[in-house]
Amino acid sequence: MALDPKKHADWEIAQDSEKSMKTIYEVAEEFGLTKEELLPQGHYIGKIDYRKVLERLKDKPNGKYVDVTAITPTPLGEGKSTSTMGLVQGLGKRGKRVSAAIRQPSGGPTMNIKGSAAGGGLAQCIPLTPFSLGFTGDINAIMNAHNLAMVALTSRMQHERNYTDEQLDRLTKMRRLDVDPTNVEMGWVIDYCCQSLRNIVIGMDGVNGKRDGFMMRSKFGIAVSSEVMGILSVATSLKDMRERMGKIVVAYDKKGNPVTTEDLEVAGAMTAWMVDALNPNLMQTLEGQPVVVHAGPFANIAIGQSSIIADQVGLKLADYHVTESGFGADIGFEKFWNLKCRYSGLVPDAAVVVATIRALKCHGGAPVPVPGKAMPKEYSEESVEWVEKGCANLIHHIRNVRKAGISPVVCLNAFVSDTKAECDKVRELVEAEGAKFAISEHWEKGGDGALDLADVVIEACEEPTNFKFLYDLDMPVKERIELIATEVYGADGVDFSADASAALSRIQADPELAKLGLCMVKTHLSLSDNPALKGVPTGWRLQIREVLTYGGAGFIVPVAGTISLMPGTGSNPSFRRVDVDVDTGKVQGIF
Amino acid sequence: MALDPKKHADWEIAQDSEKSMKTIYEVAEEFGLTKEELLPQGHYIGKIDYRKVLERLKDKPNGKYVDVTAITPTPLGEGKSTSTMGLVQGLGKRGKRVSAAIRQPSGGPTMNIKGSAAGGGLAQCIPLTPFSLGFTGDINAIMNAHNLAMVALTSRMQHERNYTDEQLDRLTKMRRLDVDPTNVEMGWVIDYCCQSLRNIVIGMDGVNGKRDGFMMRSKFGIAVSSEVMGILSVATSLKDMRERMGKIVVAYDKKGNPVTTEDLEVAGAMTAWMVDALNPNLMQTLEGQPVVVHAGPFANIAIGQSSIIADQVGLKLADYHVTESGFGADIGFEKFWNLKCRYSGLVPDAAVVVATIRALKCHGGAPVPVPGKAMPKEYSEESVEWVEKGCANLIHHIRNVRKAGISPVVCLNAFVSDTKAECDKVRELVEAEGAKFAISEHWEKGGDGALDLADVVIEACEEPTNFKFLYDLDMPVKERIELIATEVYGADGVDFSADASAALSRIQADPELAKLGLCMVKTHLSLSDNPALKGVPTGWRLQIREVLTYGGAGFIVPVAGTISLMPGTGSNPSFRRVDVDVDTGKVQGIF
Repeated sequence: MALDPKKHADWEIAQDSEKSMKTIYEVAEEFGLTKEELLPQGHYIGKIDYRKVLERLKDKPNGKYVDVTAITPTPLGEGKSTSTMGLVQGLGKRGKRVSAAIRQPSGGPTMNIKGSAAGGGLAQCIPLTPFSLGFTGDINAIMNAHNLAMVALTSRMQHERNYTDEQLDRLTKMRRLDVDPTNVEMGWVIDYCCQSLRNIVIGMDGVNGKRDGFMMRSKFGIAVSSEVMGILSVATSLKDMRERMGKIVVAYDKKGNPVTTEDLEVAGAMTAWMVDALNPNLMQTLEGQPVVVHAGPFANIAIGQSSIIADQVGLKLADYHVTESGFGADIGFEKFWNLKCRYSGLVPDAAVVVATIRALKCHGGAPVPVPGKAMPKEYSEESVEWVEKGCANLIHHIRNVRKAGISPVVCLNAFVSDTKAECDKVRELVEAEGAKFAISEHWEKGGDGALDLADVVIEACEEPTNFKFLYDLDMPVKERIELIATEVYGADGVDFSADASAALSRIQADPELAKLGLCMVKTHLSLSDNPALKGVPTGWRLQIREVLTYGGAGFIVPVAGTISLMPGTGSNPSFRRVDVDVDTGKVQGIF
Repeated sequence: MALDPKKHADWEIAQDSEKSMKTIYEVAEEFGLTKEELLPQGHYIGKIDYRKVLERLKDKPNGKYVDVTAITPTPLGEGKSTSTMGLVQGLGKRGKRVSAAIRQPSGGPTMNIKGSAAGGGLAQCIPLTPFSLGFTGDINAIMNAHNLAMVALTSRMQHERNYTDEQLDRLTKMRRLDVDPTNVEMGWVIDYCCQSLRNIVIGMDGVNGKRDGFMMRSKFGIAVSSEVMGILSVATSLKDMRERMGKIVVAYDKKGNPVTTEDLEVAGAMTAWMVDALNPNLMQTLEGQPVVVHAGPFANIAIGQSSIIADQVGLKLADYHVTESGFGADIGFEKFWNLKCRYSGLVPDAAVVVATIRALKCHGGAPVPVPGKAMPKEYSEESVEWVEKGCANLIHHIRNVRKAGISPVVCLNAFVSDTKAECDKVRELVEAEGAKFAISEHWEKGGDGALDLADVVIEACEEPTNFKFLYDLDMPVKERIELIATEVYGADGVDFSADASAALSRIQADPELAKLGLCMVKTHLSLSDNPALKGVPTGWRLQIREVLTYGGAGFIVPVAGTISLMPGTGSNPSFRRVDVDVDTGKVQGIF
């Protein structure tokens, strides 16, 4: 019997359930993996040799494919992972063969504010601690692969400065790349929220003088925003990954030509770091269903999807495979729809839009909750009016999902403070919009609380779909950005900075780059690029500050507003509350 | 039948042998581990639940304890890991229950010049690729734990600048630490040789203004030089690790008082990252003996020892446990002797000093070989004279080992270019010094080539030892530095910079710090602090540039000469030659 979520923290529930969880050998066997296909990592988590699975089951038809997205969340998150776990547990209770694909959490939020992303209450995946703390090392591998490119770049710049062309050729058989130090697009990565490393100067002289590097401006981003994470998310094979790894644009030379990882002769070694990371990871829900974990979060500053390979594996092994896209449907689902599905060729059967009364109230006018601080009292008092007003945001997301040709299922992720009148109002408005609806109590009751949701999703999967992309890759990149801004975000138009315009001209002039997909970077806290604007903002224009080229992942990355690829750590970070029980080795305070 | 090392690269031999290697389940069972004590990481490597092992075998007497050290190496390394593997394979051939403890390689050398540290020829540990590329994640965990302290420090400095005392207390219940930005002793870490990050400026303003961090000078070191690696090396339990983790001195406040990780409320979370890393790793030699891998290399800029826990486990399970100390006996063995054995309470039975004709020639006057470039022709021509002259360095190290009260065994790690006359001369001089001697051909012949070495080591282990430390912890720190410099390095004395003298005064005034051990940082390429001086330099004084406090690891760290805690990547780095076979997933070019 699981602990009561009204009385216990998520990590306490997880650790209690871990006492009786299945071994990874059992989970894998029930999932349909052979012994060879499971690569155990201890007795409770494992990696999946995806190549063997996909080869063995290549003729088996895929199961149903369900994506979980959400309304525009509050800074607390609205329980998308929790609802993913709840849905999977509910489908399990209905006797379906089911799997989830979720993303490995980043050390940034885990140690800062939002916490891990393992779900909550009685809808979680376990074991929680290894999941939250480095897991099987995929993000670390990304960090090492990514930073190796920067080691290659910066040491090369030093040596090119210190040696003549003749010396370079004689000593190392290297040609001069002649990198423009004012035009280095790539930065370093670290998997924390670390504002102090956003803008830095590197290569300053020390006791070693000319051998202390090359002085220039540089920057760090959070590891999950790395282009290498993008590559892990969309790669369909090791061969595909190796090719992508060589196309990363690190910098430009003094003539303006791109300098890639292949030019730096580092793409092979970067791929070497990533061979094991290409195997998805396996764990289980609190009720024992298989959970595949692969790639990373942050659909605001990255693609933020569970990987294509994870979904391919789940679709072969399960009758229902539930995958996750980060944040609201404007952010995560838009990328699932136009970027990930385009590269995978997979077509979803249904999309679940998670909403909470909390978020609806926030969009309707209640004070915005602040992580780490007490909830404003407005959230414990009934207000049908705020909820009704806030539903405009939810309906905007429902319509976005419809534009992809899929019928949306709204999951109201129930809180104990919700009132019947509030919930009835949401049901009324959602059904008026023609969308399916279920209240789901998985947080409090696990799979038993998600039976309605499971039934509605099963129903939705039987309906015909008419999946279509929002844009064609032949459309000019600038027009595509404008299309997303107006059609998906609800902007009046787009303003581009001088830097962004210059980058777009350069990209459009290159036939290969002009055909890449778009990976928008925008705040997840508003449909607009201003996190303070709730509901459905009108009368605004999207501000594009810069446009990055992720030539390997295959994304053009327009950056909107003031969002940074390196989040900051707040004044009351969660690492303060994390510790270890030295007698048992159990980690406390991760949530 | 293994491939011929004269015709094949190390990684080709490793991959060929991996086709028929034992599973980790077999290795663990033969080693005497229970199924529960092995935490498999895939089918060929594992982690060891050391707590269960040490608890189960607490009453079993320890096996024999052998340390492998070396003469002052050339920049190519003299095959210390190779000889460790060879000795273990030789002892195995003699029917002994044997284990090795080696250190996880750093991504720095692997991707730069020296390559991995898995041995070579027919004396290696396998599987090579995961070992060389992140392995089970211990160094990544160290990197994450370490950098979290810097995230905590730098975000705290920003928030303390931006908020009043009253706001800090109200918002976060935090007191002002008032860190002096000009007196931050800790830097960040990354596991590469990366000179461009040695001296940096962080926290520069960007689009987020006051929320873009705190501007100050900062620095990166290589991850294996992290104090957290020092803690992993000497910790004897999770409780011990947790206590040490809170004593790391990150910076000083404006009154000069230390600011620790505990003050930053981050020590618990740092420890959480390290719980799994405290379990040593298991792999196998080419001939199937167990190899325990734990902690990191670089005895020049770190402690550079395999961990105390790894040795405790090996000593309980094997009759002969062979551990490794980095570089020459002045560097690695001195720390094994005065630092690691002091903290472990373990007493070695023998120490093997590895030498090569190559290194002896170099110390005798032949041109110093340069990694990545062709060997000077002097190394393929017989020169008994150079070898004889170079033996002065070897004899210096033999005498250092004797000062610890252990009888040294010289292992001449044979190369195909060695001549009989050269080898005979070494034997003559070593035996005249009263030390044991064996020529070992493990590189060419595996365990069969190391039988003589094994026999001599078995003999040495039967002799009585009179183990004693060079210094007592009651001796003032400054005098201890002078003692090591004169007695172990052969200096005439020590000169301290103004910064170093100030730090020593501060340390000596603190009764707790004054009792810590010494972890010297000095080039490994010379007995002196000048890497260019070969043989046994005389008439020189050790220059101490700065003195760091590793309050958690329990080391005072004097830094000699111009050595940096962040090595540099050369002009012909090995990542250029690393790639992946995309059909098999095999990594090529790691050596």
